[in-house]
Amino acid sequence: MNLMQSPDIVGQVESIDLLVLPGYLVPIEPAGSVLLDHALAVHDGRIVSILPADEARLKYKARQLLDLPGHAVMPGLVNLHTHSAMSLMRGLADDLPLMDWLQQHIWPAEGQHMNRAFCGDGVRLAMAEMIRGGQTTFSDMYFFPEATAEAAIAAGMRTAVGLIVIDFPTAWAQPGEYIHKGLDLHDRLRNQALVKTVFAPHAPYTVSDEPLRQIRQYATELGIGIHMHVHETAGEVEMAVAQSGKRPWQRLKELDLLGPDLIAVHMTQLTDEEIAEAGQYKVHIAHCPESNLKLASGFCPVHRLIEAGANVGIGTDGAASNNDLDLFGELRTASLLAKAVAGDARALPAATALELATINGARALGWDDTIGSLKPGKAADFIAVDMSAVNTQPLYNVLSHLAYAVNSRQVDHVYVAGRALLSEGRLQTLVEDELLAKAREWRDIIRP
Amino acid sequence: MNLMQSPDIVGQVESIDLLVLPGYLVPIEPAGSVLLDHALAVHDGRIVSILPADEARLKYKARQLLDLPGHAVMPGLVNLHTHSAMSLMRGLADDLPLMDWLQQHIWPAEGQHMNRAFCGDGVRLAMAEMIRGGQTTFSDMYFFPEATAEAAIAAGMRTAVGLIVIDFPTAWAQPGEYIHKGLDLHDRLRNQALVKTVFAPHAPYTVSDEPLRQIRQYATELGIGIHMHVHETAGEVEMAVAQSGKRPWQRLKELDLLGPDLIAVHMTQLTDEEIAEAGQYKVHIAHCPESNLKLASGFCPVHRLIEAGANVGIGTDGAASNNDLDLFGELRTASLLAKAVAGDARALPAATALELATINGARALGWDDTIGSLKPGKAADFIAVDMSAVNTQPLYNVLSHLAYAVNSRQVDHVYVAGRALLSEGRLQTLVEDELLAKAREWRDIIRP
Ligand SMILES: [Zn+2]
Ligand SMILES: [Zn+2]
Repeated sequence: MNLMQSPDIVGQVESIDLLVLPGYLVPIEPAGSVLLDHALAVHDGRIVSILPADEARLKYKARQLLDLPGHAVMPGLVNLHTHSAMSLMRGLADDLPLMDWLQQHIWPAEGQHMNRAFCGDGVRLAMAEMIRGGQTTFSDMYFFPEATAEAAIAAGMRTAVGLIVIDFPTAWAQPGEYIHKGLDLHDRLRNQALVKTVFAPHAPYTVSDEPLRQIRQYATELGIGIHMHVHETAGEVEMAVAQSGKRPWQRLKELDLLGPDLIAVHMTQLTDEEIAEAGQYKVHIAHCPESNLKLASGFCPVHRLIEAGANVGIGTDGAASNNDLDLFGELRTASLLAKAVAGDARALPAATALELATINGARALGWDDTIGSLKPGKAADFIAVDMSAVNTQPLYNVLSHLAYAVNSRQVDHVYVAGRALLSEGRLQTLVEDELLAKAREWRDIIRP
Repeated sequence: MNLMQSPDIVGQVESIDLLVLPGYLVPIEPAGSVLLDHALAVHDGRIVSILPADEARLKYKARQLLDLPGHAVMPGLVNLHTHSAMSLMRGLADDLPLMDWLQQHIWPAEGQHMNRAFCGDGVRLAMAEMIRGGQTTFSDMYFFPEATAEAAIAAGMRTAVGLIVIDFPTAWAQPGEYIHKGLDLHDRLRNQALVKTVFAPHAPYTVSDEPLRQIRQYATELGIGIHMHVHETAGEVEMAVAQSGKRPWQRLKELDLLGPDLIAVHMTQLTDEEIAEAGQYKVHIAHCPESNLKLASGFCPVHRLIEAGANVGIGTDGAASNNDLDLFGELRTASLLAKAVAGDARALPAATALELATINGARALGWDDTIGSLKPGKAADFIAVDMSAVNTQPLYNVLSHLAYAVNSRQVDHVYVAGRALLSEGRLQTLVEDELLAKAREWRDIIRP
């Protein structure tokens, strides 16, 4: 840029917190765009502007400069469905169908060992993995949600805390207590900028009509979302039909739960009509392809759900059924699997897969005014991915590499609301040695 | 160990090159075994013994000690099918069906740019990625196989070089020349311990009967294998039936190509009878699940092929259709996908998935006397994987983590025939900066 031609820019030097100068800027919105030689200006936790790098160097005086010529900078990934504390049960039992795995391994282990300390330690371990993998927001469903919120706030991660509701007694609550404990927590978290609360009735087969009616009422009154496993396996659908003559989807419809405040997780068993309705009701889908594969639950018809008008995001599910919390890997699997399921290699192309893991997740959480894309005014939730590794060279198309070739370990920097959670590959707000020591302690307790 | 109780061990101190002391030793044979507190003794490029660590410390005086309490040591992975030089076309074209991708993008780019230098540079880039990801052996199919062999020998990687045969002219050979150029190379490589040669007729739809008959004859005379794409897509099967009234598998059977020296790649389109025959003829399958998904080619029924008695190994296919060369990722996808395709979460469990990527690949290449498992007398081709990362803790079951949770970047050490190719995460025989500079040069040539 020729200084002589820009007298208006000289003289207007603004002080800001952070100027990021990446080789490739991938804002996600507008769809498919990649900006070269551009800068991201950050102040007070927000994106101030996106502009050509040479203009930015003249316009801003930044307290911190992040010069990343070999990196791609994009919005932080949104993990739309996980049970983060279950990281402590990673690899405890594998190669089993959902119901055997739950009833014979996971629920007994939870019954014996799950408590507030377990949840805090599990969430911290999971966040270390999620942050390292470029996730800035996670939507969680588990017991002791106050422990999740507390751990996330301390680590500076953005989270949609699920207010879990289930018909069984657990260490966290007795049947009948769940909703009110959740509402208490909702009140207490009201002023936390990084936290949202979302009702999280576990699944149609574990939550009866009465609590679902209450949830519908409170969700509408308070304007909070609903996050629920729906049609994960053929077995649960058959069981419901055998018991009530009704598919769970139909029951949720009658309970007025289908709508733009529902995040339906899994959705592998759907009739043509149910796919159409998911679009008509503007339901959000949390697609968890690796968990679905591992538990042999079935294939979610993501390409058809998107065509029908549903909003699809991506989740890892818990580490006990995945067995990692790697959302770059998950969006890659989602894209590859969608092609095979659609029988069409053009299905869920790279740019769309990246949208699923960012802006679509943000939309599902009702958080797209704040996160999910890089835009002036949105929160500075972004990540920097090193594209110079042997597995991402040569580079013809940065979106292709981010979707298909990148290893999550190439994430070097992670920011949430302008705060560094990962810098040059080092966690800034979590102490890894402590987390790992806790993980070993829990292993010795659970499997002595 | 109490010294007083082992007078026979004291006094017999043997000098060896290397003693490896891993936290977990995963020899692959016997199936599913994990040895704790054991050592791997290496001398002259071979495994001398596997024994309790305390005995090993008394028995051996090692020139080098590799003390790895947090690592799992296992055989190097065998990538049973790739086109390594195609790493230079990674991300050149995506989200397209096989034939469009080949005919409109890959073949034109190859026609314009592929030469000996391209192949050498592409193979070196691919090897850097494969070694980093824990692969010690790769089975390749591409043009200028002498460039592949030369690059592999220089880098110390073990390779089964495919002697490619195709009906079209290429920069490497004219139709009619391929087989004899291949046989020349076979002769020249005869004394290279790390190299095998394997006939590599590209596919039934690109190689006519006459060269296949010659290949059958030479393969039998010289005792070398045959590596071929077979039934990758429904389209190629339909085309063959339309043109000849015959499925390609039937044609290969009539040409006497089905047998224990055939490595059939992909195999996504199979009748019940063909699956049974794959077992009866003791055919080896190179399963490439991620390429099959990405090109929407179909699902290889691995669980049924294994049940039928076929030997199944795993390949990444080329980086242009994957788009990485990550065999840990690939074996994970193979295991997850097999469960979904079988509709049974017990299908292809963790231990079996690890066998596919090691000993089964070695068997397919006729190399299981030398590699594929850790056994005294076999070559010292092994890798060390750091299990202490947040995504592999807590650790209940090392096989589960190696199959489902490990990130390929956790591979810290790679040895082939006792020579270090990767030490503490650093490549020892390839210069990464040079490879990356070459990759950038080729990108500027191919997409100016
Ligand atoms: Zn779940
Ligand atoms: Zn191939």
